[in-house]
Amino acid sequence: MGAVVGALFVGVDGGGTSTRCVVAAESGEILGRGRAGGANAVSVRDPSANLLAALLAALGGLDRSRVAGGVFGLAGAAQARALAERAWSEAELPGRPRVVPDMLVAFTGTTDAADGTVLVAGTGAVGARVRSRRIVRRADGFGWLFGDEGSGVWLGRRAVAAALTALDGRGAPTALIGPVAAALLGEAGDPEDVPALVAAAYDRIAEAGPAWLGTLAPAVDAAARRGDQVARDIVREAARRLGRTARVVGEPDGTGEERGPLVLAGSLLTEPTELARLVRAELGPRTTSLPAGDGAAGAAALALRAALPPGDPRAGEGHRALIGRTFADRPERRADDGRG
Amino acid sequence: MGAVVGALFVGVDGGGTSTRCVVAAESGEILGRGRAGGANAVSVRDPSANLLAALLAALGGLDRSRVAGGVFGLAGAAQARALAERAWSEAELPGRPRVVPDMLVAFTGTTDAADGTVLVAGTGAVGARVRSRRIVRRADGFGWLFGDEGSGVWLGRRAVAAALTALDGRGAPTALIGPVAAALLGEAGDPEDVPALVAAAYDRIAEAGPAWLGTLAPAVDAAARRGDQVARDIVREAARRLGRTARVVGEPDGTGEERGPLVLAGSLLTEPTELARLVRAELGPRTTSLPAGDGAAGAAALALRAALPPGDPRAGEGHRALIGRTFADRPERRADDGRG
Repeated sequence: MGAVVGALFVGVDGGGTSTRCVVAAESGEILGRGRAGGANAVSVRDPSANLLAALLAALGGLDRSRVAGGVFGLAGAAQARALAERAWSEAELPGRPRVVPDMLVAFTGTTDAADGTVLVAGTGAVGARVRSRRIVRRADGFGWLFGDEGSGVWLGRRAVAAALTALDGRGAPTALIGPVAAALLGEAGDPEDVPALVAAAYDRIAEAGPAWLGTLAPAVDAAARRGDQVARDIVREAARRLGRTARVVGEPDGTGEERGPLVLAGSLLTEPTELARLVRAELGPRTTSLPAGDGAAGAAALALRAALPPGDPRAGEGHRALIGRTFADRPERRADDGRG
Repeated sequence: MGAVVGALFVGVDGGGTSTRCVVAAESGEILGRGRAGGANAVSVRDPSANLLAALLAALGGLDRSRVAGGVFGLAGAAQARALAERAWSEAELPGRPRVVPDMLVAFTGTTDAADGTVLVAGTGAVGARVRSRRIVRRADGFGWLFGDEGSGVWLGRRAVAAALTALDGRGAPTALIGPVAAALLGEAGDPEDVPALVAAAYDRIAEAGPAWLGTLAPAVDAAARRGDQVARDIVREAARRLGRTARVVGEPDGTGEERGPLVLAGSLLTEPTELARLVRAELGPRTTSLPAGDGAAGAAALALRAALPPGDPRAGEGHRALIGRTFADRPERRADDGRG
């Protein structure tokens, strides 16, 4: 290690729908930003091309030989490492990047604390314990059939079931029938044609994949906010389950680390949803929760820290500068972040 | 119509795993029986060949020109009618068969009542109201993603989720981990390797289809009987949901029909399962429930009734003879069937 003056650090946050990249100096100053399509190896046709496009956009005219490290935050697909290394070498960058779970860069993009918890609720849902900026424990993240409790897909599947159950007389009437039927049959369809709704639901998932169910989540949240009891019960149950996921991973495991903050990530928890409000209520006032910041900056912070000797004060300074810059863009979040 | 002396009636019950056929005389005497593989258009490669094989076996050396009617009970696939007509014509039988829902022949194979209710819990789950031997109302039957509440697939999916949830600390410990891990990884696998379990569960469903989940149902029922609290909660919830399905379709709709018996069909309700016991308890002592008899005999009874003028006493006599013969083979069920 040693002097890193003049060195550049690359951070990439590759999500399901977009990939973001930052290039930072050792000071934490962001010198370039790039953005491209999604990088999920399961759902995106050419994730490596999107990783490369985000990298090239962020590098711009910067001298690539100065790049001293890079970190990619990617969802846990087995192919993630190969995809990242391919994009890195095609961008003609020196050395090899580190690949970490996207949950970790969500955490390090939000706080400079070494220990804490991250709870994600977007298309999927998962919780993780972070110790010394590594994921040491997980809960849920079991996917659309067996888990992801409280996620967008979880909410959407329950919305379809609740609409059908109301229509056949087993369940209470609900305002969810309208938006579910519109999503499945279009505005011209008969919202009470149960066989057509059932067939359309299976067809839609076969065509568009299970993530399609997550597109119904905003309608569930809106119906709950408007007081629909069935939707309220679904969203409350989602909040209870997400709260359980966060609690299970949220406690220190006796190895001396701090409890640390809880980072709330994923669109359902970073947007001002009813679900986010209920999750915070579920976790109680003793939990310091922060809406997730910029995962690409968090990845760059990990790259910068890895290049410095343990205890070097420039690590924390650079990290805080990187994510502070992000927070400065969204001052309304500053009061929440609890940093000194 | 008119004289049917010497006429033959064909009944076919085509299920997911087997097809059964009977050929009966007007008296209700069964003259031939046949059996072949499944006839479900969705899950079986060549359902029409299985329908034909069952027909040919039951017809044996009988004179096909005497066949005066046939009814096929088949699950509600759109292709069911075409499949039945193809098998009928390939068996060189005169006229055209009638195709009805398999739930209806389960009902008419159990009781000669005109009105009543049928509740099915096998791989899937559905309830139906029968009026004048026709299905007039349904509840559930919405398939593995949005319904079939209390079915084998429903139980199996919850068993996998409960095992995973116990392993990551969100749920209570459960004896379900053992059988779920053995089914997913084999006896040599590590039953606590959560990522391997999750990957195997998705792989298994991708390969074998969602019906595979139903193969876990006996393990859930057994664990519940042995007192495992997690399994008990799953089976109790299944019974509650099946009870709701039956109640919703079980009440007469004010058109003057009798309430009639409740026929319990599907392996989870006809076998002596803990689930069947809890469903009966859920429905209460006022409900007369009968385990489903021979659906092929029920289909033949419908064929025989269709050939006779309304009110002809031979219809009821033939119907009772057809299904009585079935019950005579299983005398332990006679006390339950409530017939005079």
